[in-house]
Amino acid sequence: MQLGLVGLGRMGGNMRERLRAAGHEVIGYDNRPELSDVANLGELAKKLDAPRAVWVMVPVGVTDDTIAKVADVLGTGDIIIDGGNSRFSDDAPRAERLDERGIGYVDVGVSGGVWGRQNGYGLMVGGAQDHVDRLMPIFEALKPAGEFGFVHAGPVGAGHYAKMVHNGVEYGLMHAYAEGYELLTKSELVTDVPGVVKSWREGTVVRSWLLDLLDRALDEDPELAELSDYTEDTGEGRWTVDEAVRLAVPMNVIAAALFARFASRQDESPAMKAVAALRQQFGGHAVRKR
Amino acid sequence: MQLGLVGLGRMGGNMRERLRAAGHEVIGYDNRPELSDVANLGELAKKLDAPRAVWVMVPVGVTDDTIAKVADVLGTGDIIIDGGNSRFSDDAPRAERLDERGIGYVDVGVSGGVWGRQNGYGLMVGGAQDHVDRLMPIFEALKPAGEFGFVHAGPVGAGHYAKMVHNGVEYGLMHAYAEGYELLTKSELVTDVPGVVKSWREGTVVRSWLLDLLDRALDEDPELAELSDYTEDTGEGRWTVDEAVRLAVPMNVIAAALFARFASRQDESPAMKAVAALRQQFGGHAVRKR
Amino acid sequence: MQLGLVGLGRMGGNMRERLRAAGHEVIGYDNRPELSDVANLGELAKKLDAPRAVWVMVPVGVTDDTIAKVADVLGTGDIIIDGGNSRFSDDAPRAERLDERGIGYVDVGVSGGVWGRQNGYGLMVGGAQDHVDRLMPIFEALKPAGEFGFVHAGPVGAGHYAKMVHNGVEYGLMHAYAEGYELLTKSELVTDVPGVVKSWREGTVVRSWLLDLLDRALDEDPELAELSDYTEDTGEGRWTVDEAVRLAVPMNVIAAALFARFASRQDESPAMKAVAALRQQFGGHAVRKR
Amino acid sequence: MQLGLVGLGRMGGNMRERLRAAGHEVIGYDNRPELSDVANLGELAKKLDAPRAVWVMVPVGVTDDTIAKVADVLGTGDIIIDGGNSRFSDDAPRAERLDERGIGYVDVGVSGGVWGRQNGYGLMVGGAQDHVDRLMPIFEALKPAGEFGFVHAGPVGAGHYAKMVHNGVEYGLMHAYAEGYELLTKSELVTDVPGVVKSWREGTVVRSWLLDLLDRALDEDPELAELSDYTEDTGEGRWTVDEAVRLAVPMNVIAAALFARFASRQDESPAMKAVAALRQQFGGHAVRKR
Repeated sequence: MQLGLVGLGRMGGNMRERLRAAGHEVIGYDNRPELSDVANLGELAKKLDAPRAVWVMVPVGVTDDTIAKVADVLGTGDIIIDGGNSRFSDDAPRAERLDERGIGYVDVGVSGGVWGRQNGYGLMVGGAQDHVDRLMPIFEALKPAGEFGFVHAGPVGAGHYAKMVHNGVEYGLMHAYAEGYELLTKSELVTDVPGVVKSWREGTVVRSWLLDLLDRALDEDPELAELSDYTEDTGEGRWTVDEAVRLAVPMNVIAAALFARFASRQDESPAMKAVAALRQQFGGHAVRKR
Repeated sequence: MQLGLVGLGRMGGNMRERLRAAGHEVIGYDNRPELSDVANLGELAKKLDAPRAVWVMVPVGVTDDTIAKVADVLGTGDIIIDGGNSRFSDDAPRAERLDERGIGYVDVGVSGGVWGRQNGYGLMVGGAQDHVDRLMPIFEALKPAGEFGFVHAGPVGAGHYAKMVHNGVEYGLMHAYAEGYELLTKSELVTDVPGVVKSWREGTVVRSWLLDLLDRALDEDPELAELSDYTEDTGEGRWTVDEAVRLAVPMNVIAAALFARFASRQDESPAMKAVAALRQQFGGHAVRKR
Repeated sequence: MQLGLVGLGRMGGNMRERLRAAGHEVIGYDNRPELSDVANLGELAKKLDAPRAVWVMVPVGVTDDTIAKVADVLGTGDIIIDGGNSRFSDDAPRAERLDERGIGYVDVGVSGGVWGRQNGYGLMVGGAQDHVDRLMPIFEALKPAGEFGFVHAGPVGAGHYAKMVHNGVEYGLMHAYAEGYELLTKSELVTDVPGVVKSWREGTVVRSWLLDLLDRALDEDPELAELSDYTEDTGEGRWTVDEAVRLAVPMNVIAAALFARFASRQDESPAMKAVAALRQQFGGHAVRKR
Repeated sequence: MQLGLVGLGRMGGNMRERLRAAGHEVIGYDNRPELSDVANLGELAKKLDAPRAVWVMVPVGVTDDTIAKVADVLGTGDIIIDGGNSRFSDDAPRAERLDERGIGYVDVGVSGGVWGRQNGYGLMVGGAQDHVDRLMPIFEALKPAGEFGFVHAGPVGAGHYAKMVHNGVEYGLMHAYAEGYELLTKSELVTDVPGVVKSWREGTVVRSWLLDLLDRALDEDPELAELSDYTEDTGEGRWTVDEAVRLAVPMNVIAAALFARFASRQDESPAMKAVAALRQQFGGHAVRKR
């Protein structure tokens, strides 16, 4: 089928390739002309037969603005899909605004990173059943070949919600491996840390794709000597903890993984300075001056 | 090659089958006669040609006693392998005691649970190089068919150390999924929680064998309605946190997963009673009486 | 000076007493006639000379509505004080709405619970300097007699912000004592747990008012046998964690204390059911059925 | 009464002064002659009338050695008191060794730091009733003047156990304040962070001696600009977490406070390098090179 695709960065560009390889007609637009199939959104709309479907795949900061511009070139019966990492709570207001103009809205959480073009993307979809049905050929092409990797999780917002939780879980998984890795590096007994990690890839309870990637990273740099420990977070982890707080879900593991990212970006910890100050006050403990 | 195998429970019994299927001659002993190939350990020793190798696969509480009894029927040049979940710090003293009698000692962390017979077992091995070399045919038969699933992690103790860390990581991974699962169940948006979990099995960053098992559990009982939340822990998680404390490794995630198991076994929390008492004292807050 | 006081529950009623004891003229209103000094807000406004100051001390859910009603009987130059546990982010919009009508707004975080009438209240104040100056006689009467217990923390919102952090800290403090208390109760060595807590009240590093209260609770019920562990949370702890997430502050301790309250209110933990399910799947571990 | 006091460092020296001020005859020994009242332990023993009491107040690493030397100059009916920060599990073996020579043993956890000389020390005592009774005049002199600050917590070991838990609680309390402090410093609303801390000293729920000290530290250095965040830990925090793990007590708060100290001493976090490596692998996320 036909699909408009707005945003041809690392994710969007790869998705265009995967969709075309599956036989779909993709008209891509990006404000970088060298990436774009059309000169502007108006041209993109003209190249698509109604009812149109346009997939927006842009950084989260410009999503609402982009969707507004796309809506301006679409009409009743068309559908806009947001495949970016939007906060789930933005979806319902967005859908309402579009609905006033007769435009449908579907939110899709897309997982898989740079490997998705080759392996397929994990898709978590929120929206009305008829909208999702119309888009199934696209979803089928993007998802992995097997029986998994796609879910219609619920109404508008449920796709991004499921993706948010996915990323929260991802934080926890990564940090569990990371803590185990650090302990192995400190052990006086284990002489082959990368070998232990590699061995875990088959037969063990902890085998996973993330573990495969950790092994890959250690193949490239066995002591991770080239990397800084400075680690960004991209929103979904924070939203997951916020939701846990809102819904009274105990979430010690995922929160700890998030807080560790915060700490990794601090040159020094104001909290620990306060602790050091207290120890100095009551115990006369020697403290380090800066 | 020949192998004596002491302990034919769920793990040992399956390993005997896998080893025999690979063409090895296994003489098994268990104090349950209906499981045992021989009447006693003396008979087991007689059926093996020197230098012998005897794998002990018994519950952690009886390991030292069992090893002592096995050592009594072995002699110089023989090797005892402990494949149970021993604490790594027990390995070196054990090896010393056996070394005084000329008996070698190899410790093996074995992962894979009830699935190992079919998929192969992840093996983490500690011991001297020549001992490990002699046992490689056994390890080859037990491990999965692929290139992973085996590591000679270091000297005596390193195998159980690597397995301990493996299990600590396992605690963290399981709890990360569990927190995500709980949040999904509380969401007002996600209408198909088992469907979300199932979708994650391909294409996503969080795909893993544990996730496959969670999906399997939800297939059997979509709301886990039949299960209690009471969860045991078997030692390795505790030892992992102890080691983190000893080696000054921050381990918030794995410790939180461990503490959650402790909490799951409490009818009520003495700590939270103290918090409730404090709130009542300073705020006149209504509290629940038992 | 004169003060209108709206809301004469546990907190407001005690404050009225303390203010009157200090010689201030307090006109109290409550929708429970038996507590109220006046029949309605109009009457309250009439009894106060302009420029008026009216302190609102109502449950957080009805604060905005109450302030709106109070504003309807006030005029240019008057001030409304919110002494309830409002979220700091509600303060600025509220101040703007009142400012359009010439009414000033000051937010005050009030600590001290039921003990405040006797000991004085800790006051954290946000607002314009001239508003705060006008209200100083009231603040002086409410605060404790000593040199501490009052701060003008910043502009509108800063008072509730400081109170929010105060309560977050309070959660952490309470839980630190609570964990220590639980460990003491489990010790095989300590035979006099209430005695240990009592001894800590002087000379130690951990002495505090909360500890005094814990001792008081144990005097009344040495094993806290009458109390349930079910513990509410009242918002400020959640907002503190939300702010930590927003501002990238690692907050493991306060978040853990909050999550423990959530857990105390669960009959069973969906997360731990998922963990139990996983253990059953991979290990054939016995699990408890409900 | 008479007391031998071995170890006249910061703690021991101050205790000698406080005991003498209360009218006790203290014979102090230290291997630094300029601090010592006697030339050697033999002389110390001679100056005391039997049955003697000798209080050992030395760093934890040399306690056993010092006690052995003291025992060599004592005899049947004498008592040795260990007032250092020994691990509780060392007490019973120590008591048994001394008991074989007819020497009694009492363990005392001493809190109060450099302030103890002036304020009195919090004392947590473990030992036999008759031993404790004999030493009560000493305890009375060391403890604060009020009704609190002393407990006979149980048999040998209980004193150090109670002190261990005290210090674990102390870690949690300090970190709760520290997290609140950090959040205040990040707030866009609060313009007077030291003022907020100071205000909390009276009337609030969070008032405590530690808070007084935090205020004192901020008086000296309002932004803690002179301090490093590098923070030591001295054993009791680790033992507290170890005990929690042994006794299956959920201890998220105190453990998090301990782990934060570990993290404060790391130039970079191996765990976070692993997380950064994973993000780079799956997402092509930009990472920082060292």
